[in-house]
Amino acid sequence: MSSSPPPAAAAELPDPAATSVDAMGWMQGYPPPTDKLITFDDPAGGAYPRTRWSFSHVRETVPTANVWRGNGPPSPLPAAPRDLSQIAFTTAAGQPMSFGEMVERTYADGILVLHRGAVVCEQYFGALAPERPHIAMSVTKSFVGTLAAILVAEGALDAEAPVTIHLPELAPTAYGDASVREVMDMTIGVRYSEDYADPAAEVWGYARAGGMLVQGPGYAGPKSFYEFLVTLEKDGAHGDAFAYKTVNAEVLAWVLRRASGRSLADLLSEKIWRPIGAEQDAYFMVDRIGTEAGGGGLNTTLRDLARFGETMRNGGIAPGGRRAIPAAAVADITRGGDPAKFSRAGYPLLDGWSYRDMWWITNNPHRAFMARGIHGQCIYVDPTAEMVIARYAAHPMAANGANDPLTLPAFQAVAEALMRG
Amino acid sequence: MSSSPPPAAAAELPDPAATSVDAMGWMQGYPPPTDKLITFDDPAGGAYPRTRWSFSHVRETVPTANVWRGNGPPSPLPAAPRDLSQIAFTTAAGQPMSFGEMVERTYADGILVLHRGAVVCEQYFGALAPERPHIAMSVTKSFVGTLAAILVAEGALDAEAPVTIHLPELAPTAYGDASVREVMDMTIGVRYSEDYADPAAEVWGYARAGGMLVQGPGYAGPKSFYEFLVTLEKDGAHGDAFAYKTVNAEVLAWVLRRASGRSLADLLSEKIWRPIGAEQDAYFMVDRIGTEAGGGGLNTTLRDLARFGETMRNGGIAPGGRRAIPAAAVADITRGGDPAKFSRAGYPLLDGWSYRDMWWITNNPHRAFMARGIHGQCIYVDPTAEMVIARYAAHPMAANGANDPLTLPAFQAVAEALMRG
Repeated sequence: MSSSPPPAAAAELPDPAATSVDAMGWMQGYPPPTDKLITFDDPAGGAYPRTRWSFSHVRETVPTANVWRGNGPPSPLPAAPRDLSQIAFTTAAGQPMSFGEMVERTYADGILVLHRGAVVCEQYFGALAPERPHIAMSVTKSFVGTLAAILVAEGALDAEAPVTIHLPELAPTAYGDASVREVMDMTIGVRYSEDYADPAAEVWGYARAGGMLVQGPGYAGPKSFYEFLVTLEKDGAHGDAFAYKTVNAEVLAWVLRRASGRSLADLLSEKIWRPIGAEQDAYFMVDRIGTEAGGGGLNTTLRDLARFGETMRNGGIAPGGRRAIPAAAVADITRGGDPAKFSRAGYPLLDGWSYRDMWWITNNPHRAFMARGIHGQCIYVDPTAEMVIARYAAHPMAANGANDPLTLPAFQAVAEALMRG
Repeated sequence: MSSSPPPAAAAELPDPAATSVDAMGWMQGYPPPTDKLITFDDPAGGAYPRTRWSFSHVRETVPTANVWRGNGPPSPLPAAPRDLSQIAFTTAAGQPMSFGEMVERTYADGILVLHRGAVVCEQYFGALAPERPHIAMSVTKSFVGTLAAILVAEGALDAEAPVTIHLPELAPTAYGDASVREVMDMTIGVRYSEDYADPAAEVWGYARAGGMLVQGPGYAGPKSFYEFLVTLEKDGAHGDAFAYKTVNAEVLAWVLRRASGRSLADLLSEKIWRPIGAEQDAYFMVDRIGTEAGGGGLNTTLRDLARFGETMRNGGIAPGGRRAIPAAAVADITRGGDPAKFSRAGYPLLDGWSYRDMWWITNNPHRAFMARGIHGQCIYVDPTAEMVIARYAAHPMAANGANDPLTLPAFQAVAEALMRG
């Protein structure tokens, strides 16, 4: 979570190099100097530029639940290094730029490009390292949506069933007449604002309930995700329009727990993390009663994020050739959602896209699809170019509208360059 | 940490089976029922019987720092199962008992016995599992002491140097005229009580400063381990008598950070965890500025605890035959400390023992040595019997005096049985 108002315009964005972890000297020394400390109870702790350190050190400030990788060897990610930095593209604003410049100007903490399963580019900046998990923000949702698609494919979850079959507690809420499918595709009419620039937005109450922000003395609001979710009121109809709201991912995570009898961390370990041959354990932020933050609390290494993307690119076959995710689950995602419903959400930069099972489907000529999180976290899967890009970042502005004008054309340019050979 | 007064006498101890995690149903369901919740801010959360769950779920309630195992395969622990449960012994109180009864009546969460490097017994109870870390309590100190011995063996730390060479901040404290060696062997004269049965003991202030207990509204005391350590006053002489005080381990951990330029978690990963071929990552509880709890905050799996013990038994050679710890470091530990200094601490059950580099040396005919933590955590290394026992437990009484009368004769009986073949 980011708790500070972002800079007003891209023109005012701070110099990435000047605010790198190395330049700032955060959390160096025993103890670090007072002005270099980053703590959970410091309101600035979750704000840029401290995020360049804190996004790679989440577990050191909050409780977490482990996502076990199992005991086997990691699946192979062979190296085939290639210099992508000079690949040229034009930003959505018409500015010429190189891939290397894009990486810096989207405040990447790390970026990894796979082509046909081989690592052509793997770079880390500042606080991130190959073995260190970084917060995935809303990329988490795509894991939750994939888990739902897996349970549906396995016959353990009925997407057309009402939510209340699993969560009778939600009968008096916005979800009282919603289907699991509507939650999976975020076509829920619920009073909940995701506007990070609005201090009154419900997203802050959500984050506070889940322990992702300090609750503070005298706090009398909900003290767990569940306590927050039962307060949500209906606003509009279900099924008509895509409306991106993190609470839907929390509701879906709750459905998954009830349907599987497993915690979200254990379910992710069993259904995805162990099957794809992850290299490191992952972890979730949890609330005070141990509930994982399914909307944005997953932390993984960059390499494991890329492994998941590569598995999705290959229809559920993990690196190394093992079936990790049912083909039907991947097909349910890649077929995409309804672009007409998506268009009602009004994303000017994402014309023609759709949303399905908590994945963003570009519907571009390459049939690319994405997992997206605030501040620039993403998995970009381009089946046509046989390319996967995983990026962790600490962009000062939360909304992806701040980096899409650079990111999306850059990824397309790399795809085309890789296809040229 | 345990925050509750223990039962007054062993005769009043609760039935282990009736208070098992399975019997109590802690933290089952989404959400768990209110009366089955265990949270960090519940004063009962750190007290028996909830400890049977919480000792295996520490990271889900507090911030932690990872101790990375590296990317290689775990070192081998071949299985050679054998039923030890009927091995008979006589308790220190003269009562006949079996090894199996001892395991239950010391509230073991798990026990693992190695003989000549093979696993003859490996059992888990309640919340513990082979891949799940459990809090090691003061067994942590033996890791810290071993790290100090390693740095000394490598020439990176001078045990005879004054503490203030590394920690000038401690000049006005009890440690102002102490040597690193005196800290390593806990012969420090410092006003600090470790009596868990005394609510006024300094150990509670230490735990609160380190974030291991709730600080509460209006808390105005130290907010980090460092802030607590600089308050410690001298009480008596250094070098004369063993006096078990957790703060010495925190001071030593601080010395190690300054001497190595590494965090304790990174140093443990580099010098022990990766070299011994640990199977899972370990982790430390940390205070609000990320400082690891070197006195009792390490969490490991039972198997990895046994791997460390086996490495110590073999003079620093890890399972599989790789040199993991310098022979000189292990030799410095196993030579033991001064039994005359130890006897002044007054442990009636530990007659003739000594303390060296934060290990407990029995000086018994088998030359056994131990790492020991409250509530029954331990590593027991018997070089003569070529045996290592690792136990994690949730004994209702903190002090090991509550389990030693059963534990020590049982371990000796198993050693003799294994030697008979």
